[in-house]
Amino acid sequence: MAPMTTFKGDQFDRSLFESVIKRRFFFTESFEIYRLARNFHGDNRGLYDYGPPGCALQANIVDVWRKHFVLEENMLELDCTVITPELVLKTSGHVDKFADWMCKDPVKGEYLRADHLVENVLQSRLARGVDGPLKNSSKLDEATIDKYNDILAKIDNYDGPELGDLIKKFDIRNPDGNGEVLPPIPFNLMFKCTVGPSAAAPVYLRPETAQGQFLNFRKLLEFNQGAMPFASASIGKSYRNEISPRSGLLRVREFLMAEIEHYVDPEKKEHQRFQEVVGLELPLLDKETQLAGKTTPRSTSIEEAVKSKTIDNETLGYFLGRIMLFLLKIGVDPSKLRFRQHLDNEMAHYACDCWDAELLTSYGWIECVGCADRSAYDLTVHSNFTGTPLVVKETLRTGPIKSERWQASLDKKLVGPKFKQDAKAVQASVEALKQPLLESLAAELNAKGVVTVDTATPLADGTSSVELSRELLTIQKVTQLQTVREYTPNVIEPSFGIGRILYCLLEQTYWHRPQDAARAQRPKVLSLPLVVAPTKVLIVPISAQSQFVPIIRRLSSRLRALGITNNVDSSGASIGKRYARNDELGTPLGITVDFDTVANGSITLRDRDTTSQVRGSEDEVLDAVNNLVGGVESWQQITQHLAPFSTQGQDND
Amino acid sequence: MAPMTTFKGDQFDRSLFESVIKRRFFFTESFEIYRLARNFHGDNRGLYDYGPPGCALQANIVDVWRKHFVLEENMLELDCTVITPELVLKTSGHVDKFADWMCKDPVKGEYLRADHLVENVLQSRLARGVDGPLKNSSKLDEATIDKYNDILAKIDNYDGPELGDLIKKFDIRNPDGNGEVLPPIPFNLMFKCTVGPSAAAPVYLRPETAQGQFLNFRKLLEFNQGAMPFASASIGKSYRNEISPRSGLLRVREFLMAEIEHYVDPEKKEHQRFQEVVGLELPLLDKETQLAGKTTPRSTSIEEAVKSKTIDNETLGYFLGRIMLFLLKIGVDPSKLRFRQHLDNEMAHYACDCWDAELLTSYGWIECVGCADRSAYDLTVHSNFTGTPLVVKETLRTGPIKSERWQASLDKKLVGPKFKQDAKAVQASVEALKQPLLESLAAELNAKGVVTVDTATPLADGTSSVELSRELLTIQKVTQLQTVREYTPNVIEPSFGIGRILYCLLEQTYWHRPQDAARAQRPKVLSLPLVVAPTKVLIVPISAQSQFVPIIRRLSSRLRALGITNNVDSSGASIGKRYARNDELGTPLGITVDFDTVANGSITLRDRDTTSQVRGSEDEVLDAVNNLVGGVESWQQITQHLAPFSTQGQDND
Repeated sequence: MAPMTTFKGDQFDRSLFESVIKRRFFFTESFEIYRLARNFHGDNRGLYDYGPPGCALQANIVDVWRKHFVLEENMLELDCTVITPELVLKTSGHVDKFADWMCKDPVKGEYLRADHLVENVLQSRLARGVDGPLKNSSKLDEATIDKYNDILAKIDNYDGPELGDLIKKFDIRNPDGNGEVLPPIPFNLMFKCTVGPSAAAPVYLRPETAQGQFLNFRKLLEFNQGAMPFASASIGKSYRNEISPRSGLLRVREFLMAEIEHYVDPEKKEHQRFQEVVGLELPLLDKETQLAGKTTPRSTSIEEAVKSKTIDNETLGYFLGRIMLFLLKIGVDPSKLRFRQHLDNEMAHYACDCWDAELLTSYGWIECVGCADRSAYDLTVHSNFTGTPLVVKETLRTGPIKSERWQASLDKKLVGPKFKQDAKAVQASVEALKQPLLESLAAELNAKGVVTVDTATPLADGTSSVELSRELLTIQKVTQLQTVREYTPNVIEPSFGIGRILYCLLEQTYWHRPQDAARAQRPKVLSLPLVVAPTKVLIVPISAQSQFVPIIRRLSSRLRALGITNNVDSSGASIGKRYARNDELGTPLGITVDFDTVANGSITLRDRDTTSQVRGSEDEVLDAVNNLVGGVESWQQITQHLAPFSTQGQDND
Repeated sequence: MAPMTTFKGDQFDRSLFESVIKRRFFFTESFEIYRLARNFHGDNRGLYDYGPPGCALQANIVDVWRKHFVLEENMLELDCTVITPELVLKTSGHVDKFADWMCKDPVKGEYLRADHLVENVLQSRLARGVDGPLKNSSKLDEATIDKYNDILAKIDNYDGPELGDLIKKFDIRNPDGNGEVLPPIPFNLMFKCTVGPSAAAPVYLRPETAQGQFLNFRKLLEFNQGAMPFASASIGKSYRNEISPRSGLLRVREFLMAEIEHYVDPEKKEHQRFQEVVGLELPLLDKETQLAGKTTPRSTSIEEAVKSKTIDNETLGYFLGRIMLFLLKIGVDPSKLRFRQHLDNEMAHYACDCWDAELLTSYGWIECVGCADRSAYDLTVHSNFTGTPLVVKETLRTGPIKSERWQASLDKKLVGPKFKQDAKAVQASVEALKQPLLESLAAELNAKGVVTVDTATPLADGTSSVELSRELLTIQKVTQLQTVREYTPNVIEPSFGIGRILYCLLEQTYWHRPQDAARAQRPKVLSLPLVVAPTKVLIVPISAQSQFVPIIRRLSSRLRALGITNNVDSSGASIGKRYARNDELGTPLGITVDFDTVANGSITLRDRDTTSQVRGSEDEVLDAVNNLVGGVESWQQITQHLAPFSTQGQDND
């Protein structure tokens, strides 16, 4: 992969980035003081705690999500339990199918996820230019390079036995120690516990929030006063017992999800607000393109993509558009976003089509949002198992529909004695007769008094048809009145991994200011947009003198009353250092109180990204802050009506 | 217990209340369609899903909590994992001590929580006026009644063996079947699972959010730039594997907690903002009052309670006051609130003092918020185990402190040869000498050249003292310079059970309107305050005619732009029925659009609690709504500047 550049064009440096994230306590490995302690040998990877800025960033992303999706469309939000009985997840298919393939290295006692093993080893061989695990393996030839690249492009499409074949064929071994691994076996990814003292009731921690929503479908429909289509939504933790988590926040065992289940009439997958998104251009990487071994997305308007059936239907297209708008709103770099369609073998067991919104990071393209068509799968299996109808009954608006159809019936009293052991087969054959054939048979029966009907299975005498006379068979036209239409809704599911989005956003908004004489290191900045920034405003007095205290308190309290989060830094550090700390925290605005403030009430407002400053009265600056936070004005507009202000290298203090 | 009345004075009817909660989908038992299905025998009680209004109410309570506590005091919010390694919870004491006592009924195969068993049986005997489990048991005499009441008042103070004694002494049996039960055994309340494919790492679902906060103490202090005191906070799910959950939302296995850990200098438990709460009167039920068998709280000002040491310190007093203000803000009935101090045996293993905010419901007084002084317990045990210092180092502001002290030292080269096997005991005795004694010994040594020192253990010759001469012993005054003070902070922990608060709030805001001729049943109302109501405004067109559609859409979109949640009900039901539905949903305001709206643009605004209505232009009414939601005006004030409006019995339609 080519080295990544930040959105400002300088080179992304993951180790510098990670040191900022750690230093500013965005997140940290859980139980870190235990990890460093003696006697702590458990496999406790893939678990992370969010510190204050990470926690605020997460809460802000969730808040935007709720407004953008739930409130905007009056979705019915639910909060269901994480603990889920085995029977529910057995029915949903998760107990049997929610598994990854893993290989054991019997020497190291280590478990490796099979697809990751193949992927890592082939990538490493390509990078090193050799074709085997050992130092004396030979140089890669063109044909092998093509073969490896082909496998990597389709890596998500292999099942366990296929991965086992690849491991054998290419002599793929555990990179840690070069040991051979055993053939892949499935490992269920759900955490299992028991409930209550009797321990008789196995339960799992849910792997997705969706099932709780499906189980409540009947109540939801009733709450919605029977109206269709509608959506439910849930924000909550889910759990996956990953085989061998790596890559920090990108593959974790406990994570926050935000999921929408949009219920539609399978015959009407249009969307009322489709027109609002038709013009949006999405970077699409469809199934066919991937299977051709290519990875470049094609920018396509939603209208065109739905028309050409690249995207199956309007509702799916609508949500892909809404997902893109959401991601851009929170600060995702549009040049590092693509929508990739799942390959057939990659799809979850419940899905019939799926698109992932992927974000580009230093780890490559990361799946952050899935948008799956789950069809009627879940509602059907739960309904079948419990005997509870999970259906929509729609009174036909046009009034009852009169329909005419041909109906064939045999005189049962005569059929038995006449056909004996063949009676059932004859009966079944008559019941199976289709409408168009029935119509012509009716005419024939009327004309000739007898017709020949084919049987599905051979009869006792070896023939496969019977003659049926008018005495035995009646075919007539009947009229039916249908007043209610009953159907199981299909489900379109946009599903968001909040932690992954958060991590990718941090990478995508990170950059370095140019180095200058005053600084030993390039200053680091997180350009988080105001709407998600953990703290909106930093308030700094120029020094710790007591005359600033009442001014600082008043400013903080006025901002709080406006609902604008702010943080006061009265520490002894220089103004420049305090700004630099807050640039790393992603704080977009800074207010400085100095000796002129005491004299004339004016304060300074600083913009994080440009470091430019303006000066005005307390009221003017607070108005400007309120307008910036509310999205009413841009920094550019603010500089047009507030006076510029400059200190000699305050940022370089 | 006397029958409960609602805050409007009519009698509370739990079955009517429950039917509203269920009908309006505030919450429901999880996996309900499975509970009703065949083959579902697991113990899956104590698990609840929140429907749309319950979920919104919960989110609003959490939002008020975050503003009232976290933002108001710049607390450092964290989001830590639920999954917690065994070693962490072993160290914290939860693996050994976080248990309830349970008795098995061997015949029924049922497990009963021991204290609940004793409580239920004695209460039932008092209610029935008999002294035993069987029908032919004798009538209760005064002495037994007193005895039972005394036990019930102290029920939280008994440990397992004591409960066992009571069960034996009073022949307490399983009310279901009258079977004798086995002696109480402890049952750990944590859910256990394993992580990763090796299954070598036992983990638990956290029973509280607190431990994650403690483990991050060092990072938090650093983030806070070393300043003390400060608080961290967490909102998240916790889990308790209850033995036999009953009472709906009040005893559940998965629940949302909001916890604050406020770190203080153990020598300075005052609080900077204490003055803001001193005047508040709290209904206090202290330890002594309860042990005297009484249950009536005493209204006491926080100032007086802290002065008299009823409440141990300022910080504890401050938080009890803030807790009360929070509860009143979200709509708790002040006459149904008390603060009860924990009895000694009732206290969690980590706490040295604890007060519960309890809310009165039809189930009695329910603990909803705990406010515990956890002292330095948790930080100390984690620090000791991991070897990580979890301390505050404070540079003494007054500069280094000079302190003078007497120091005794033995000449080691001479002590060994002289005392041989007694040398260690002599050395220890000298080291143990206290300051005042050292001072007089110094004078004596100076005057006489020899002193007698008592030894803690007898010496080889049977004596318990030695003579030490000036050659062996030196006692001199030394001067020490102390620049840094190091201490482990104490923790004051306000801990909120959001689900319990939500349930109690629903009961406390529920009431019935008087019945009248037009109604078959008394209409039911949830008087949830605007700040927490799931939906703030109902918008209803007088009929489903298309001329109302654009007006309704505009109103809804204008309210949404103001951040005010609203719901449109264009269903065919009468206006009265639509209002009644929303009274049950706790929607405080209703806007009606009718034919006059089309003619002159005026709309009607209805107040849920009084059902009174006012009329004004769209702008006037939206202003009024905005002021009501923002708490700027009351309904009373609105009625003074908007014209009253009345329809003949619209509410009775």
